[in-house]
Amino acid sequence: MKHIVLIGLTLLIGQNAISQVIEREQKDSLEIRKIYDMALLNGRAYNWLDHLSTQIGPRLSGSYNAQRAVEYTKKELEQLGLDKVWLQPVMVPKWVRGAKETAYVETTPGTKRDLKITALGGSIASPAGGTKAEFIEVQGIEDLARYGEENIKGKIVFYNRPMQANLINTFEAYGGCVDQRYSGAAEAAKYGAVGVIVRSMNLRLDDFPHTGTMSYGELPVSQRIPAAAISTNDAEYLSGILKMQKDSKLYFKVNSSQLPDVESFNVIGEITGIQFPDEIIVVGGHLDSWDLGDGSHDDGAGVVQSMEVLRLFKELGLKPKRTIRVVLFMNEENGLRGGNKYAEIAKKNNENHLFALESDAGGFTPRGFSFDATNTQFAQIESWKKLFGPYLIHQFDRGGSGADIGPLKNGTTVLAGLRPDSQRYFDHHHSDNDTFEHINKRELELGAATMTSLIYLVDKYGFGEISKERETKM
Amino acid sequence: MKHIVLIGLTLLIGQNAISQVIEREQKDSLEIRKIYDMALLNGRAYNWLDHLSTQIGPRLSGSYNAQRAVEYTKKELEQLGLDKVWLQPVMVPKWVRGAKETAYVETTPGTKRDLKITALGGSIASPAGGTKAEFIEVQGIEDLARYGEENIKGKIVFYNRPMQANLINTFEAYGGCVDQRYSGAAEAAKYGAVGVIVRSMNLRLDDFPHTGTMSYGELPVSQRIPAAAISTNDAEYLSGILKMQKDSKLYFKVNSSQLPDVESFNVIGEITGIQFPDEIIVVGGHLDSWDLGDGSHDDGAGVVQSMEVLRLFKELGLKPKRTIRVVLFMNEENGLRGGNKYAEIAKKNNENHLFALESDAGGFTPRGFSFDATNTQFAQIESWKKLFGPYLIHQFDRGGSGADIGPLKNGTTVLAGLRPDSQRYFDHHHSDNDTFEHINKRELELGAATMTSLIYLVDKYGFGEISKERETKM
Repeated sequence: MKHIVLIGLTLLIGQNAISQVIEREQKDSLEIRKIYDMALLNGRAYNWLDHLSTQIGPRLSGSYNAQRAVEYTKKELEQLGLDKVWLQPVMVPKWVRGAKETAYVETTPGTKRDLKITALGGSIASPAGGTKAEFIEVQGIEDLARYGEENIKGKIVFYNRPMQANLINTFEAYGGCVDQRYSGAAEAAKYGAVGVIVRSMNLRLDDFPHTGTMSYGELPVSQRIPAAAISTNDAEYLSGILKMQKDSKLYFKVNSSQLPDVESFNVIGEITGIQFPDEIIVVGGHLDSWDLGDGSHDDGAGVVQSMEVLRLFKELGLKPKRTIRVVLFMNEENGLRGGNKYAEIAKKNNENHLFALESDAGGFTPRGFSFDATNTQFAQIESWKKLFGPYLIHQFDRGGSGADIGPLKNGTTVLAGLRPDSQRYFDHHHSDNDTFEHINKRELELGAATMTSLIYLVDKYGFGEISKERETKM
Repeated sequence: MKHIVLIGLTLLIGQNAISQVIEREQKDSLEIRKIYDMALLNGRAYNWLDHLSTQIGPRLSGSYNAQRAVEYTKKELEQLGLDKVWLQPVMVPKWVRGAKETAYVETTPGTKRDLKITALGGSIASPAGGTKAEFIEVQGIEDLARYGEENIKGKIVFYNRPMQANLINTFEAYGGCVDQRYSGAAEAAKYGAVGVIVRSMNLRLDDFPHTGTMSYGELPVSQRIPAAAISTNDAEYLSGILKMQKDSKLYFKVNSSQLPDVESFNVIGEITGIQFPDEIIVVGGHLDSWDLGDGSHDDGAGVVQSMEVLRLFKELGLKPKRTIRVVLFMNEENGLRGGNKYAEIAKKNNENHLFALESDAGGFTPRGFSFDATNTQFAQIESWKKLFGPYLIHQFDRGGSGADIGPLKNGTTVLAGLRPDSQRYFDHHHSDNDTFEHINKRELELGAATMTSLIYLVDKYGFGEISKERETKM
């Protein structure tokens, strides 16, 4: 009899627990539906991005436009009725492109064909008359040692390893090539090269040269050589010309310079948590962009999506338990000074960051997230996955997050990156082709809704034991 | 002892079965990797589509271009070394647009503002001088009864219910509105309307009017009224004008006509199965398009992806057990004559169709498939799902397939539709904005590889008991 009562009780408690879970999931599912509805029916992200891209334009660190973007986004955040909006000062590098680059290939004296190039971010200027020399094509930094100084000295090195088209995730293809852009000049200089031309990081054959950051590493200033990217179409052309005529000459001139650092800002706003105001959830993107195109995908999209997360919380009357903070980072592209500064100040202030999410992979249809988390944390995150099914969000992967939030990594803060469809990203990335017309309103809004839904869940349930303990005590 | 031997034996057999499954999956996984590699590194689909879209152009049923598309795709299929390529004659309707449509709204006499419209496919021509009348805005066919003849007679009915932006699957949003386009004229005519203007089936606000098929149903010829679609921007404008000035007049003139049916063709090619040649697997898209844009997404993409499936089989030396047949259907847009004819002939010839797959939802990043199958069949299909994980193919849903293969439905043939990302589809669909420049090569190729991989599995394993039995007997 006693046994039967016990079993009955256990069953009752079990059923009760199950029905509580079901009820909670139903409630979450309804809240998430409201978030998507609001984002898709009354979204603000697209209009913000229109202003940022079309009215302001490209936002290279230290530029007038970057400052305008700081002021614009601060003003817009202030109008959302957040609990706090502020600027966080940070010194940023100021690299300027100068006059437009020129380049041509000369097969026989007097036979010139212009080439589409763009200086790499951080490149020194060419000598006054530009650089004209024979050139050697290599498939990567590894090739330099094989050719040796005897084949490289006095020449321009042409890095032409293409992004690998059969990789499904285009960021992987990027990762497999970008060393040519980042370190190609420093490495070629060691073999006596006089300049470097790099095939653009672009899976498509087209006429846009794509810039991006590079570094001379420890190379003494006197040994530095100018570096530029060339469009994929012209890279193919150059490669073909070289096969036809080995002594063809390449000319290029870039006019960039590195000015002293200037003051800029991270733009920050927050809704203070009503239960655990000291537990901070960050959502962000980066406000700076390259100076080509208007930076709509990289990373205007991430900026306005992050702002939209806080707006949706306000608009829907969601009062977060924890503090939700939007951070629009400055200088992701050529220095990461904003991300480093934010983490430095957070540490100094002994702030407790529960979670940080970055959107910096374009404004395309969201497919999911990548999480940098412990096993326990990830198990909890995975239990939320089914709530995203109706929105066709299927990817809950483990992996990297975002460059700007990387400095927050400490083993307990969960870091995450939004993962939009990546197929078209490198058609636009860092080039004149990254413009507002290539943003689809719905895709952008779906990203914002997906981010908001995740943050809604993180805020509601926290992470792991500490959060659970505090929840129980309340 | 006997028991222990038995258990041991069972375990051995069990382990053996498990390791066989693992081995088979590894083999499938390698084959699928090869399919994707070939499609992405040496694909043909994009070049075919370039020709179909850029050299030939839009392919309305019965047009010269449709005939050129028949000849071009037949020739290309013949060059693939298939076992058989042939044309299947089918009579198709020949609707022609005539001179470009004109429309304006007049608030006060002499104050005209031009409007962007396009005749709906199947619309009769306007009267010689066009139609000029007051207009009434409705939110759908249901509204007609509410307003009644007293408010509608002699007027133009303006259907303005927008596609629902908070639906994640844009085809659902389309399904919720398209009755206005398809039946709007027939229904409005019953209340004495003199013409119909329909808001374009487009989630975006822009200047493209989107055509599409309509039907007068049983309405006597004498009662038919002309019908056109208006761009979403102009629909918003028209709605606003009407609120400002109730007696504003709308003028529009369409110049279309329905000519006698003409002969056209389905284009068919096949690789004959080496084990079960009588079991047929169909893959297809439709060769016809509307006469606006160049029909790249609808459905040039599906055509070239289907051709690519057979090319990949040949290129990779895959010798299918069953017969793999590509069918490029004629006249999906305004008659479905090709789909019906194909099924009719198949039935007449007592053909056994195991499986049919259509790609007719745009050339965007593939997300998965929708299957029209029995529980048993679907269970088998789901067991393949994990093989698609590395390619970010997550959607294995039950539901519809494709219009052209619909007539094959018989309760045993499994039907399926490729499901690409749908967010941007209706930005292009049936409008001047459906052009080749909006096709991304990688996205198109990923679709072709995904289709090929599914067909590889269907061919290898067949479906259900009958297939299994035959497999065992071999």
